[in-house]
Amino acid sequence: VRRVTGRRCGESRTRAAILAAARDHFAARGFNGASLRAIAAAAGVDTGLIRHFFGCKDDLFIATLHVPDEVFEWMRKALDGDVGRLGERMVDAYLRLWENPATAEPLLAVARSAISSKKGTNRLRAVCGGSVFRDFLPHVGIDRAETRIALAGAHLMGVALARYVVQVPPLVNLGRDELIATCAPAIQRYLTEPLP
Amino acid sequence: VRRVTGRRCGESRTRAAILAAARDHFAARGFNGASLRAIAAAAGVDTGLIRHFFGCKDDLFIATLHVPDEVFEWMRKALDGDVGRLGERMVDAYLRLWENPATAEPLLAVARSAISSKKGTNRLRAVCGGSVFRDFLPHVGIDRAETRIALAGAHLMGVALARYVVQVPPLVNLGRDELIATCAPAIQRYLTEPLP
Repeated sequence: VRRVTGRRCGESRTRAAILAAARDHFAARGFNGASLRAIAAAAGVDTGLIRHFFGCKDDLFIATLHVPDEVFEWMRKALDGDVGRLGERMVDAYLRLWENPATAEPLLAVARSAISSKKGTNRLRAVCGGSVFRDFLPHVGIDRAETRIALAGAHLMGVALARYVVQVPPLVNLGRDELIATCAPAIQRYLTEPLP
Repeated sequence: VRRVTGRRCGESRTRAAILAAARDHFAARGFNGASLRAIAAAAGVDTGLIRHFFGCKDDLFIATLHVPDEVFEWMRKALDGDVGRLGERMVDAYLRLWENPATAEPLLAVARSAISSKKGTNRLRAVCGGSVFRDFLPHVGIDRAETRIALAGAHLMGVALARYVVQVPPLVNLGRDELIATCAPAIQRYLTEPLP
């Protein structure tokens, strides 16, 4: 049993290494300029193993854009509790997604490709319009839920890109709790208060 | 005289065509994967003309990330007037930047490259920390101006990417005036009201 577990752990580490190398390579070269051979070299595996785990280049690209279940679970959990502090919990949960490499790397890959290619744009639009937000809507239980979630999401994405990716100094220097307290009122308003 | 003007107009159209082709190509292939030959083909010119106007590939890349003066002028103009409506004017001016191809294309190129490469990240950080914001600070005349501008900028960038690039339906469907009225209170608060 231990050997099987060991092999599974090794497999999952190898898959993760391939995905990380693929995300960097697709970001640097775009989908068309990317090659399985270069990704395999960066991950320290051969291309056969990539084909075995992921299939063709298109399948691997889709896999790099897979948003893990934790993303949706953490955001859903943030919905529970006092509605008056929903903004605070949403900012907290969203920052946590970007502080954890297992969730931050796929989110960054989706954001990058959405901004650089039509293929990625369609993918991000599908995620935004997809299960997450359909699940959210009944919980929020307020008029114009899709508009509210899009506004809150756009604001939070801007903050995450500025703080974690571009690393704009004033946002990097804000403490986590201070950033939550600073952004929560805007998110609270978008989600729960009257809009024009 | 007319002929000289004509040639200048033609030159500036050719430069603009090369820059537009280069932005698309760098977005699709990244800096390392990009080639002057492919950019020249896309722009319908020969590589010699690109070298004549812009120099080497590195210089051309820098040129695609040049933020035109209008960007700073429009944002500066938005500072003038009633401080109580600063948020409204800032959202209005920022949306205008993304509605106009001459300003939207370089802003998108900077955002794309900032999210995909270290070279671009440094460039965007330099723009954020640079002249625009140094000029803004005395006008805003409030404590913690750099933090306020970073918060407002991150929020506005998220909204622009969601509306104009990813085209998230609820944000595309909001009318311009409605979007301004919706986002202005958050921007007003970041720029002028007490922060935690």
